[in-house]
Amino acid sequence: MKLVRYGRPGKEKPGLIDDEGKLRDLSGVIDDIGPEQLSDKVLRKLDKIPHADLPLVRGNPRFGVPVSKIGKFIGIGLNYYDHAKEMDLPIPTEPIVFMKAISCLSGPDDPVMLPKGSKKTDWEVELGVIIGTRARHVTVKDAEKHIAGYCVVNDISEREFQFERGSQWDKGKGCDTFGPVGPWLVTRDEVYFPDKLDLYLELNGKRMQSGSTDNMIFSVPQIISYLSQFMTLEPGDVIATGTPPGVGNGRKPKRFLKKGDFMRLGIAGLGEQQQDVIAFQQY
Amino acid sequence: MKLVRYGRPGKEKPGLIDDEGKLRDLSGVIDDIGPEQLSDKVLRKLDKIPHADLPLVRGNPRFGVPVSKIGKFIGIGLNYYDHAKEMDLPIPTEPIVFMKAISCLSGPDDPVMLPKGSKKTDWEVELGVIIGTRARHVTVKDAEKHIAGYCVVNDISEREFQFERGSQWDKGKGCDTFGPVGPWLVTRDEVYFPDKLDLYLELNGKRMQSGSTDNMIFSVPQIISYLSQFMTLEPGDVIATGTPPGVGNGRKPKRFLKKGDFMRLGIAGLGEQQQDVIAFQQY
Repeated sequence: MKLVRYGRPGKEKPGLIDDEGKLRDLSGVIDDIGPEQLSDKVLRKLDKIPHADLPLVRGNPRFGVPVSKIGKFIGIGLNYYDHAKEMDLPIPTEPIVFMKAISCLSGPDDPVMLPKGSKKTDWEVELGVIIGTRARHVTVKDAEKHIAGYCVVNDISEREFQFERGSQWDKGKGCDTFGPVGPWLVTRDEVYFPDKLDLYLELNGKRMQSGSTDNMIFSVPQIISYLSQFMTLEPGDVIATGTPPGVGNGRKPKRFLKKGDFMRLGIAGLGEQQQDVIAFQQY
Repeated sequence: MKLVRYGRPGKEKPGLIDDEGKLRDLSGVIDDIGPEQLSDKVLRKLDKIPHADLPLVRGNPRFGVPVSKIGKFIGIGLNYYDHAKEMDLPIPTEPIVFMKAISCLSGPDDPVMLPKGSKKTDWEVELGVIIGTRARHVTVKDAEKHIAGYCVVNDISEREFQFERGSQWDKGKGCDTFGPVGPWLVTRDEVYFPDKLDLYLELNGKRMQSGSTDNMIFSVPQIISYLSQFMTLEPGDVIATGTPPGVGNGRKPKRFLKKGDFMRLGIAGLGEQQQDVIAFQQY
């Protein structure tokens, strides 16, 4: 099942994408897609509704983040061998964990705004994992059943803020619009091989990132198990699992985002995002 | 005004502490104390109600975190000159920013649980700031008016997880029960000199931390202004503004929390917290 939230920012309605790729409204069935709708039980119930009976949504509404009331937006750093190499940083011996401010959450096709004074804003296509049920000290073997589904995340990062303004990365990870998530939450029963997904990102039509989740240093179940030793993962928490090579900071010469740039990124089976890069504006 | 949320975990009701120190119920007036109740307008309205007309609450109920629906729990590292020195780390030239997982939020007198395998769990009494209105790129001069109030925070930290498990601190800052907040949200009109508040923490009756916010490297308005350049601060966001000297990791010999320890900590005018330290338990 491909779940979405569509409509104006802050006014999104729940919906799903049917087998023909059509958007159908779920607001007659559930109020929202949030922590309370992410358990296997609720998801199975939703899946049993004949999708053809749900009202079709006309037009091409905006997509929002496919889950509301996200509590934590967790990032894993340097989780692809080649990316660690291009960043000239050592291969981690255990997952590097940082947090993205939830105020950075953004619809998959909403513009990405350069922060005031930013010179080093960068892209990172990533496999996102959306937690479905509470996870505490779970084993690698049991981890998968805590997943509601998967999604595309662009883990936008300001490299100066991340690396040159103190020791901690969070400052460069949570600026407004730095967390496009979506378009869909694809339930885990439809993602047969999460460890063999192709990811890509294009800038102005030119391929920048190409990768496969089979190059991850730590697998999705390993990440969930690991994180659950340090904090309770709650339904609705989103984990961005690291990016493959090809970020702007790793290129020679380096290439950072500029006003007018256009990003297109996606993951096989999980849909595509498109973002215009806009200059900072008071808002 | 001293606002509280009292009752069983997850079932807290809004209340206030009157001038005689008595707990009075606010649930006939507001549903909860959350982001929507933190603006000056709502706070002024609440303050106009004759407190003596509000029902007295009998007994000694548990206090919860005084604000619900907290979006971000932000920490500032090494913000007291003497603490940076005792940690043997350089004086920051700009605020160090990290994030505490919101799943670590805990009532002010709830037990603190040692994480599984933890050997280096440490205490940190801190002045907490609760944001009342959205703040984006605010000046130092304008920062104060975005504050709803102040509170006590114990920024519990696992030093091995923080410093020895990769480069990022968040792993050691957000374990369950690592974020006692409260007992009260004291509205900013009652905190005349936030830059001259005495803080203390006792372990098993012995004074460990003594300090004053006048030793902060970056003042509360500077911190708010600074953070608001990197992320939008939203009503209900909590900022822990750093700890004075006397943490376990800075003592000679080092002293970390053990099962059976008892912490008492407070800030002049903002109340006191008391926590039993308990062993890890599956829950």
